[in-house]
Amino acid sequence: MSNLARITPANWPHPADYAAPPTAADRTRWAEADRAARPERLGRLRKRMIQEGVDGYFGLRWEHMRYLTGLPFDESEVAGSGDSGKFMVGLEDVWVLADSRYTIAVQRECPDATLYEIELQLVDEWPGLVAKSGVSRVAVEAMTIPHLTWERLRAATPGIELIPVEGWVEADRQHKEPSELERVAAACAISDRALAALLPSIRQGVTEKDLALDLEWRIRTGGADRLAFDVACLSGAEAALPHGAPGLRPVKSGEVLLFDFGAQVEGYRSDMTRTLFVGEPRERDLEVYRMVAASQDIVFDALGEAVSSAQRGIALPAGPSFDHMARDLITGDGRFPAYGHGLGHGIGLATHELPGLGRRSADVPLPDRTVFSVEPGIYMEGEVGVRIEDLVIVDVEAGLVERITNFPRDEVVVGI
Amino acid sequence: MSNLARITPANWPHPADYAAPPTAADRTRWAEADRAARPERLGRLRKRMIQEGVDGYFGLRWEHMRYLTGLPFDESEVAGSGDSGKFMVGLEDVWVLADSRYTIAVQRECPDATLYEIELQLVDEWPGLVAKSGVSRVAVEAMTIPHLTWERLRAATPGIELIPVEGWVEADRQHKEPSELERVAAACAISDRALAALLPSIRQGVTEKDLALDLEWRIRTGGADRLAFDVACLSGAEAALPHGAPGLRPVKSGEVLLFDFGAQVEGYRSDMTRTLFVGEPRERDLEVYRMVAASQDIVFDALGEAVSSAQRGIALPAGPSFDHMARDLITGDGRFPAYGHGLGHGIGLATHELPGLGRRSADVPLPDRTVFSVEPGIYMEGEVGVRIEDLVIVDVEAGLVERITNFPRDEVVVGI
Repeated sequence: MSNLARITPANWPHPADYAAPPTAADRTRWAEADRAARPERLGRLRKRMIQEGVDGYFGLRWEHMRYLTGLPFDESEVAGSGDSGKFMVGLEDVWVLADSRYTIAVQRECPDATLYEIELQLVDEWPGLVAKSGVSRVAVEAMTIPHLTWERLRAATPGIELIPVEGWVEADRQHKEPSELERVAAACAISDRALAALLPSIRQGVTEKDLALDLEWRIRTGGADRLAFDVACLSGAEAALPHGAPGLRPVKSGEVLLFDFGAQVEGYRSDMTRTLFVGEPRERDLEVYRMVAASQDIVFDALGEAVSSAQRGIALPAGPSFDHMARDLITGDGRFPAYGHGLGHGIGLATHELPGLGRRSADVPLPDRTVFSVEPGIYMEGEVGVRIEDLVIVDVEAGLVERITNFPRDEVVVGI
Repeated sequence: MSNLARITPANWPHPADYAAPPTAADRTRWAEADRAARPERLGRLRKRMIQEGVDGYFGLRWEHMRYLTGLPFDESEVAGSGDSGKFMVGLEDVWVLADSRYTIAVQRECPDATLYEIELQLVDEWPGLVAKSGVSRVAVEAMTIPHLTWERLRAATPGIELIPVEGWVEADRQHKEPSELERVAAACAISDRALAALLPSIRQGVTEKDLALDLEWRIRTGGADRLAFDVACLSGAEAALPHGAPGLRPVKSGEVLLFDFGAQVEGYRSDMTRTLFVGEPRERDLEVYRMVAASQDIVFDALGEAVSSAQRGIALPAGPSFDHMARDLITGDGRFPAYGHGLGHGIGLATHELPGLGRRSADVPLPDRTVFSVEPGIYMEGEVGVRIEDLVIVDVEAGLVERITNFPRDEVVVGI
């Protein structure tokens, strides 16, 4: 079992323990790295296109728009942007669609792509786009394009073959470039700092909603461009809801307090969970906490061994094997139920991406030079919930298993 | 042309000019109204199902989940919720899918639906769902379901007929219930208050980002559950980007300052735009502003006449006719280009919904008892942009054309 220290106000972490927010120079460097990497990203996609015998790739996912063209969209922007940002990759060129609201943004943000101005619905623009880009056999992101749109595009250009494809860019995006990992780590440090800064504000009587808003504010004024997702702050038995929302419940002594949150830095995200103890921890809650920490520990140990083996040429284990390892430890102990969700997920432009470390994730070796979460939990309905979530970089060539969430995982006591 | 007053600090609006934030009693009343209305909403859907000869309706859009089942999802939650929240409406019952992360939420929030627990991918759960719900001919939201998912569901249950449908629930949702309109108006009042409260903070040198965050904070601590969408704050020539993002540009005297923002109250949204003058307005900017205000005025006048006619049995005009009216006024004047976007859009659970008031919106009469934006603009690239956006309720029976955005549309001067 883990050796966890007890962390009280006397030895609480301090915001200055964590890396400073990114500078303007960092941001410029990252933008330049992205622009320099884009031809290689497109080159890998085109290699796949040629292998699969297509001469066009029609993309609709915002992560892919950003990765391949530079357009800084995310889930909040796509809700209102219509067909703007969708893109066609040919064997030589890239076209980015934009209606009048987005033409200037595309010209600014996608310097190496060609603006394709649209005025009408996608189906009405499609024949022109296909003609202009000269494609005849087009891979289409079929887990994103709505069924009805697919049918309409097919009918609009009967001579053009549409090939439903899935996962091409996702598979590529799980291998992270150094400047991508830097941004994930920078987002982690902003989150660590924000939680350290919040600790003194956690007093009995303050509500989950107050604390969630306070933490969000610290993240967004502490160097983040935005949140990765809404802050979860759940106290006591509410922490047993793995996706609960902060409510008007006041923080109470003798309860746990769970925070799940993340930041975005130039498009790249962090994701961390800490479960704190308000006042003197209850024995049962400590037992649950130690069990979760132990189940996370064995995963980190196993990742270290896996990277050593990989340096000797043995493939990394598959994601599900790590989930089973953590789950079996909890189940084997017999006192508590194991988490119902997966052990972890890749992270980058999206909060959840490949690789998957769930029970039902793909049974293929983990990719190299990647970053993902390790987040076991125990949820006892009506009683208590505990989750601990860290991000970890795995890099075989560098012999590296690096936890980049640095806020302590020990028994942190607050509100006293 | 409009008679617009000049509003300086001496006669600025004050937060207390607008309705107070909703109380806990308001929220309870709205929740009860929703629960009471849900059987009628489902009844209208089932009537359509029977007309079209289907015995099941498989829904995937979060607006529809919320409207028909009560599950309080929005675009931020669906990003990570997998298949949870998707739902099947049968002729008698409703089933809401949830994996282990969401089962408690569904039980709490959807008291009149049946939880359908899922562990696997949708395609693997589908045969069980179809069997349990006893459906054999299923309408599927075909503008939301991904093409690949559609193909997989079809292959998984060859004996079940899938019918691609679009717009059934959208058409219904544009007719608003009184308690829906109350929430949109409450969200408007929160936005009005927040902007009034922000005015003294608008000083030369403060950046667009600072002001956007400040305004957001006032909205979220002023009674909103969340933003309707990210705050846009654009100064000077940046205001010519109808979808620009706030940057590090400092506010400067002699420039315009455009805010486009909205709040959410118990799921219902507001959306407003104001273009303020920082320091002494430039003559050219005033001319643009007055032109935009005039183009909005003639729409409101025409709406008033349309409602009077409708009370005598004449159908309301179609959305595009109002767009043409505002656009033609600007174009006919000849000095400035007209907006490239649409004149307006319905609003409710989603920020953009039916009815559409764009050039290419459906050429059908506006629905009765509805709410939409009227937001003409003029964008001169590299020079200046002006947009004025108000929400308006149209209710023929009540003889009502009510602007529910109450912050003045006059020439508001700030930063002096």
